[in-house]
Amino acid sequence: MLDVNAGVPGIDEPALLVAAIRAVSEVTDVPICIDSSVIEALEAALAVYEGKVLVNSCTAEDERMDRILPVIKKYGAAVIGMANDETGITMVPQERVEIARRIIERAVYYGIAAEDVIIDPIAMTVAADPQAGVITLDTMKLIKAQLGNNITCGASNVSFGLPERPIVNAAFFPVAMHSGLTCAITNPLIPEVRKAVLASDLLLGHDEYAAAWIADFRAGQKKVASTS
Amino acid sequence: MLDVNAGVPGIDEPALLVAAIRAVSEVTDVPICIDSSVIEALEAALAVYEGKVLVNSCTAEDERMDRILPVIKKYGAAVIGMANDETGITMVPQERVEIARRIIERAVYYGIAAEDVIIDPIAMTVAADPQAGVITLDTMKLIKAQLGNNITCGASNVSFGLPERPIVNAAFFPVAMHSGLTCAITNPLIPEVRKAVLASDLLLGHDEYAAAWIADFRAGQKKVASTS
Repeated sequence: MLDVNAGVPGIDEPALLVAAIRAVSEVTDVPICIDSSVIEALEAALAVYEGKVLVNSCTAEDERMDRILPVIKKYGAAVIGMANDETGITMVPQERVEIARRIIERAVYYGIAAEDVIIDPIAMTVAADPQAGVITLDTMKLIKAQLGNNITCGASNVSFGLPERPIVNAAFFPVAMHSGLTCAITNPLIPEVRKAVLASDLLLGHDEYAAAWIADFRAGQKKVASTS
Repeated sequence: MLDVNAGVPGIDEPALLVAAIRAVSEVTDVPICIDSSVIEALEAALAVYEGKVLVNSCTAEDERMDRILPVIKKYGAAVIGMANDETGITMVPQERVEIARRIIERAVYYGIAAEDVIIDPIAMTVAADPQAGVITLDTMKLIKAQLGNNITCGASNVSFGLPERPIVNAAFFPVAMHSGLTCAITNPLIPEVRKAVLASDLLLGHDEYAAAWIADFRAGQKKVASTS
């Protein structure tokens, strides 16, 4: 799934987002995630895209939920529910879960299936708060246990401001996937990240007899052979 | 801590192990782990080494515990308790915990402090059993919750028989350290593994303000600068 964002300061975001989605749709059939905090841009983009889309994202402020969720329902989309609200981002995992629960309940109220809400427990950098990673992981575990929804997050946030970010991001995947992360927002073209996801699947019992791991290794060898 | 092993088929293991420990002691003050399943070699090595040593390992067979643990006590050593016994290695995490508990109880019976028993929950390759990694992780969590002892394991076992082992091993550390692993048996000279341990400490809240991560990055840069 491809995240499409047109949030450039000073531009006409609805027009640019629609143009970007049309351009992307012409070159690929990969499903799209529309990434905007501007409701007019979201609505314009949803109107032109053919097929089920994921919207990134809806936070738990009453006003935002009551504007965005009916639009999600109207276009049969799915939505990422971000676990923060008008009070900001809490550092107490169970409080993030309660905020997530509110978004899911409001979505259901507007006729959206609970499983069409993917929860983002919020990942922040360990450079600013050493406990930021553990708080995100604990929130994931609670969401998995209490809500059962799919879980996403901006995985590379954990390393913001640090050197050698690909290595830190790669190390986040095994433990996040074990804690409940099901679909990260990340750059799969970074080799460390791609390999970390494959290795995590392997270690966590999602790659029987290492079939995917070995296939990826062989594909890599062929690539090297054909370019040397 | 350095693991010293002299298990070469056909040789006089007690004599070779003693010679190896003497040689190692001459060049480094790093604490030593004596790695042997031959009781005569263990006893000879413990007799010559000055300082507290770790013995790798004691399994839960009555006969082995009753031979090895009094020797551990006699020399004031610590010991790795391997969570298997005469019935082999169980794939049920709680059963491994009970086996570990038996070793700790027997050690205490022989006058060894419970905290001088480090538990090895046993790591096996995911190439043979896709659930092997999850079973080891679950066992670690149970040991952490129910026994509280330090936890070790042969971390590189998880990737035995697979290509690109350093990447798989690196991915194992974050999730194993989060599950309770406190002191792995591994090769810290493998760059992927060393970086994975540092990144895990960082993500799990054990590296305040990324001091160790940044120091390691700077040391790496200096090394590159001085060799270029």
